[in-house]
Amino acid sequence: MDFSSFLTSLGTSFLIFVVLMLLFTWLSRKPGNSFVYYPNRILKGLEPWDGASRSRNPFAWIREAFSSSEQDVINMSGVDTAVYFVFLSTALAILVLSGLVLLPVLLPVAATDDNVKTQKDKGNQSFSDIDKLLMGNVKGGSPRLWAFLIATYWVSLVTYFLLWKAYVHVSGLRANALMSPELTPEQFAVLVRDIPPVPEGRTRKEQVDSYFKSIYPETFYRSMVVTNNKEVNKIYIELEGYKKKLAHAEAVYDESKKTGKPEGLRPTIRTGPLGIVGRKVDSIEHYNEKIKELIPKLEAEQKVTLRENQQACAFAFFTNRVTAASAAQSLHAQMVDTWTVMEAPEPRQIIWSNLKIKYFQRIIRQYVVCFIVALTILFYMIPIGLISALTTLDNLKKILPFLKPIVNIVAVKTVLEAYLPQIALIVFLALLPKLLLALSKAEGIPSVGHAVRATSGKYFYFTILNVFIGVTLGGTLFTTFKSIEEKPNSIVSLLASSLPGNATFFLTFVALKFFVGYGLELSRIVPLIIFHLKKKYLCKTEAELKEAWFPGDLGYATRIPGDMLVLTIVLCYSVIAPLIIPFGVVYFGLGWLVLRNQALKVYAPSFETYGRMWPHIHTRVIAALILFQVTMFGYFVVKKFSFSTFLLIPLPILSLLFAYVCHKKFYRSFSDTALEVACRELKEIPNMERIYRSFIPPSLSSEKADDDHFEDALSQVSRVGSFA
Amino acid sequence: MDFSSFLTSLGTSFLIFVVLMLLFTWLSRKPGNSFVYYPNRILKGLEPWDGASRSRNPFAWIREAFSSSEQDVINMSGVDTAVYFVFLSTALAILVLSGLVLLPVLLPVAATDDNVKTQKDKGNQSFSDIDKLLMGNVKGGSPRLWAFLIATYWVSLVTYFLLWKAYVHVSGLRANALMSPELTPEQFAVLVRDIPPVPEGRTRKEQVDSYFKSIYPETFYRSMVVTNNKEVNKIYIELEGYKKKLAHAEAVYDESKKTGKPEGLRPTIRTGPLGIVGRKVDSIEHYNEKIKELIPKLEAEQKVTLRENQQACAFAFFTNRVTAASAAQSLHAQMVDTWTVMEAPEPRQIIWSNLKIKYFQRIIRQYVVCFIVALTILFYMIPIGLISALTTLDNLKKILPFLKPIVNIVAVKTVLEAYLPQIALIVFLALLPKLLLALSKAEGIPSVGHAVRATSGKYFYFTILNVFIGVTLGGTLFTTFKSIEEKPNSIVSLLASSLPGNATFFLTFVALKFFVGYGLELSRIVPLIIFHLKKKYLCKTEAELKEAWFPGDLGYATRIPGDMLVLTIVLCYSVIAPLIIPFGVVYFGLGWLVLRNQALKVYAPSFETYGRMWPHIHTRVIAALILFQVTMFGYFVVKKFSFSTFLLIPLPILSLLFAYVCHKKFYRSFSDTALEVACRELKEIPNMERIYRSFIPPSLSSEKADDDHFEDALSQVSRVGSFA
Repeated sequence: MDFSSFLTSLGTSFLIFVVLMLLFTWLSRKPGNSFVYYPNRILKGLEPWDGASRSRNPFAWIREAFSSSEQDVINMSGVDTAVYFVFLSTALAILVLSGLVLLPVLLPVAATDDNVKTQKDKGNQSFSDIDKLLMGNVKGGSPRLWAFLIATYWVSLVTYFLLWKAYVHVSGLRANALMSPELTPEQFAVLVRDIPPVPEGRTRKEQVDSYFKSIYPETFYRSMVVTNNKEVNKIYIELEGYKKKLAHAEAVYDESKKTGKPEGLRPTIRTGPLGIVGRKVDSIEHYNEKIKELIPKLEAEQKVTLRENQQACAFAFFTNRVTAASAAQSLHAQMVDTWTVMEAPEPRQIIWSNLKIKYFQRIIRQYVVCFIVALTILFYMIPIGLISALTTLDNLKKILPFLKPIVNIVAVKTVLEAYLPQIALIVFLALLPKLLLALSKAEGIPSVGHAVRATSGKYFYFTILNVFIGVTLGGTLFTTFKSIEEKPNSIVSLLASSLPGNATFFLTFVALKFFVGYGLELSRIVPLIIFHLKKKYLCKTEAELKEAWFPGDLGYATRIPGDMLVLTIVLCYSVIAPLIIPFGVVYFGLGWLVLRNQALKVYAPSFETYGRMWPHIHTRVIAALILFQVTMFGYFVVKKFSFSTFLLIPLPILSLLFAYVCHKKFYRSFSDTALEVACRELKEIPNMERIYRSFIPPSLSSEKADDDHFEDALSQVSRVGSFA
Repeated sequence: MDFSSFLTSLGTSFLIFVVLMLLFTWLSRKPGNSFVYYPNRILKGLEPWDGASRSRNPFAWIREAFSSSEQDVINMSGVDTAVYFVFLSTALAILVLSGLVLLPVLLPVAATDDNVKTQKDKGNQSFSDIDKLLMGNVKGGSPRLWAFLIATYWVSLVTYFLLWKAYVHVSGLRANALMSPELTPEQFAVLVRDIPPVPEGRTRKEQVDSYFKSIYPETFYRSMVVTNNKEVNKIYIELEGYKKKLAHAEAVYDESKKTGKPEGLRPTIRTGPLGIVGRKVDSIEHYNEKIKELIPKLEAEQKVTLRENQQACAFAFFTNRVTAASAAQSLHAQMVDTWTVMEAPEPRQIIWSNLKIKYFQRIIRQYVVCFIVALTILFYMIPIGLISALTTLDNLKKILPFLKPIVNIVAVKTVLEAYLPQIALIVFLALLPKLLLALSKAEGIPSVGHAVRATSGKYFYFTILNVFIGVTLGGTLFTTFKSIEEKPNSIVSLLASSLPGNATFFLTFVALKFFVGYGLELSRIVPLIIFHLKKKYLCKTEAELKEAWFPGDLGYATRIPGDMLVLTIVLCYSVIAPLIIPFGVVYFGLGWLVLRNQALKVYAPSFETYGRMWPHIHTRVIAALILFQVTMFGYFVVKKFSFSTFLLIPLPILSLLFAYVCHKKFYRSFSDTALEVACRELKEIPNMERIYRSFIPPSLSSEKADDDHFEDALSQVSRVGSFA
């Protein structure tokens, strides 16, 4: 890619960004769009914009983002989001501090040498003006390389320093959140798994209660046995569906009263499949009937579930936070694979179906998933190739004959034939995060937050391996595959020698990512269009409307790997092509700004893990740093910097040591709750009954005012037992 | 070694054993020797022998050993000893079950082939009759090798099965011991290390108390800050020394009254160094003076120590066992390297000087020690070679001129010159366990039991590497060193091919070890002689006499590696030379019998770790098994058993899997105390004051009746603080 086409692509991206920004400033001021641009504020019960900023200038959001404190972010969007901002600002600081030294030093050092020119004169390859500013312009073995070697150290040391500060800071954030005087139900509960079989003549609840009562005679409140809710969930979802349809039908009826005849037009529906065929009936009556039918069925099923579908896991509730935190960390049974106790996840993020999975099965599942993911990452091209080979047009026609008339159109045919493999790849890449999330859930992880973390890790390895290393080595990998097989070490030097050639590609990549990516993020064009379409044609009730604008969360599973990819690219190129650093700075700076706005006003977090994401981010930044250090070593070897190259060997070792020390010093307070944190006093005396009830899944909680039947059903047998 | 010399050596060993046995039966019946043969019973306040067995036959001890139950062993010698017997009986059972199948099957299979004869006819090497019974007698590639392959599987499966049963059993032993209603002080305490610096205006004790009071408001009893006792210990030891000497002098004086003049002869001493030169004074007066001098000095130093030598670690005491057990497992501070809490060791086995070592320093020390030990194990011959090269006679004469007249005698000179290197080696081997113990203590381990465990592990690797692998490869290693360097994998096949040649060597080695080793163990010839010498010439007081016969403990640090070496040898040879199995059976059978006697009657345990030795033993048995499986694989390769050899590859993987599953299922209940175990009720209400006092080191506990000054000194400032 030569210099002019690079500038063109940069200019185009910038233009798109400016257009999207203007769109945002215009659209976000229309009151009708406030559901799209301020949903988080609306959910929190706040005005879309404060009185002060009503008469605000188009760039008020920037001022608001800058003036918002970390505490504001925590209040509006939770600790996880604040931790994500710590990551963004740490990455930004690493790049700024690196750039401040590297740009003024390395660019002149490289520019005043003439390796490129010499090579060009030899007619070796075509070079552009950018290449003059890269490390490639320094002659092999030149003493100028010392500047690049020291720069490598500088970037590493800056990273260590800032990562350490960030870990201390995040650790404090987590501690503050956990010692908050606000009452959070999960801090009073523990999840108990792998409960041994119920002894003869006792109920599961008696068994759990007596076990914990004997260990915690004073602080144990009560237990809740987890049930298999598959059947009851099915009925509950059906019931809720009919309720929504009823509300919709009523809204349609009300509307027809206003617009048409005063007596209104009662909506009708066909009872057959898909509502297309079958007898035509009055919708409202039909749904009312169905609901009347289902309510007693649900109640009966609830009772059956509570009595008969009890599983070998439970939640135990304690009357104070210290006991719960301590219990979650302590070994309860002599056999480690029974009565395993862990911190209870937030009720909203529990993956109920995973709770029953047994200890060793969880371990096996972990390894199996790990193996599958490794295969997917390394060989994902094979199934895609197979699929695209099988889904030729002829095969498609055979399998799906109704497509025949469409496929036979010439234009469609050409496009399909040309793009089928690409389409398969795009579909795969779009589905990959979902696939990885499903795999993570299949490990037996009990909470969504943890599963998202695991997904993020898997996705990180996928992007680094396939986008960064894949693109860098590109076609050369296959041609030189033999040489790698013979000398596995040569992959480092191969990677190193392929790096400079791709510098402009990645410059453009990063620029595209921040201009177009953050432009789309800020302007929310797609959610806006969907919302307005739904509002106009589909939504009739308040609930349906809320569903249409509900913003979702930041989506860490894909967002963090994406940022990590950029950080990895920028780190790896920081010394070879220091020009990339300003692009990285803009990426993380702009990202911080745009997402600050989104976090404060748009996204609603769907779970809270109190910053447990951080150790994973930390580890991956170090992994990126090590990749940088290793490729630098390889590049110095390529540059024939003789003996001094070995001065780079301590760096990866130092990084591993740094990772080890950080892990030892900080990690456990992220996987467990420190007792000094849990022992802080609460604002109010905890209402244990409310805490207990917050863990009852919606499909099991009764709608009646006296919703005691959950307790009754559970303790009925136990009471009989204790009277006997 | 040919057959006849093998038989001779076997016969000699057996003869020595019989002589020692007879000596034992004769000597142990003499009442004057009861302190040597029944010290543990005497320490427990029991009669040396019960009434029933007074008129007992010479082999009554065998009946007693067999009829003793595991509970007897626990009562007399603690859980650790019982666990050691589980190890002995498991090893015995593995060998018996293996032998029952292997001997009747493999011996005929090997004996009816004629590989040895063929080789002999070729004049390849000299073979003995034993060699006909070995796997070496089977022709390479013969289908008979299937029997040996299946035998390898049988031995492995038997080992898995019995190890699993043993782990379950030991886990139960540990649980029973920990849930015992007897009161053990260490179950109410935790050790707190890495306490952060004291905040301005508070004392260490206030800091610790307020910290634990806020986390455990109801169950925290009090804390005890650990002090640096170096100075006070010095004075205390001096004082105790003078007290002993005073008692000795008084006993001498009393005796002189009886034997000589009625007014007695007051013993005298010279005050100069070593008691050889200087003014002659009356011993009793002199010692009394010294004691009078030292007591106030000790008291003053105690006060200074308690006030000023406080360190950043403490013991915290709780009013119940569950809280203490749970506290020891919980993270207390947000920063993992501060306020680290762990189970308190028994007071008698605390290594006080290690308590203050900081978190990261402990980790660094661990790695440094690990590195030093690895160097010692691999290259211990180098310093010994150097020492023996330097300590030639000429050098010796130069450094220690007073040796000259002795060294110049011709006979001494010859012997010294011939044996100096061997003497250096022997001295090194004798000092090695002590060196390894010192290294283990230098790791910062807080309890003796743990240090002994660590030593045992290090010594195990030393013996396996140097005795087993060293002897097997022997000289061949150095000649084929180049080939190993080129092909590191070849070490397995090299080991495998060297094994059969050394079979008779190891047969003799095992036989010598059990006949002579256990003969000496049972007859206690050396302690007997030392005791009688001391009794006659040195001991004058009861305390001195007790010191002379006090038996010490089983010495796990060297005993277990010794047994493990035999087990490793027997396992590795079990299929190649099944003849070794009976020897192994005799070793462990005789060992069980002899040590049962010793455990019940002789040795007094010096610490109790509730079976925490077991996971280490378990891991090492599996290590031995894997060594066996790998060498068998190598041997089958040597035997050219072609494709079927690969059927052995699953075995080491299976072993690793087995080790992993066992570790997951059992290990944590050995490193921590399960709460369901700690919550059992106690026999009596714990006397917290007594529990607290049992942790005061002897040098700090006052001798006065109202020994409250420890508490006073500690809490004085704290009281002032709380009044303010």
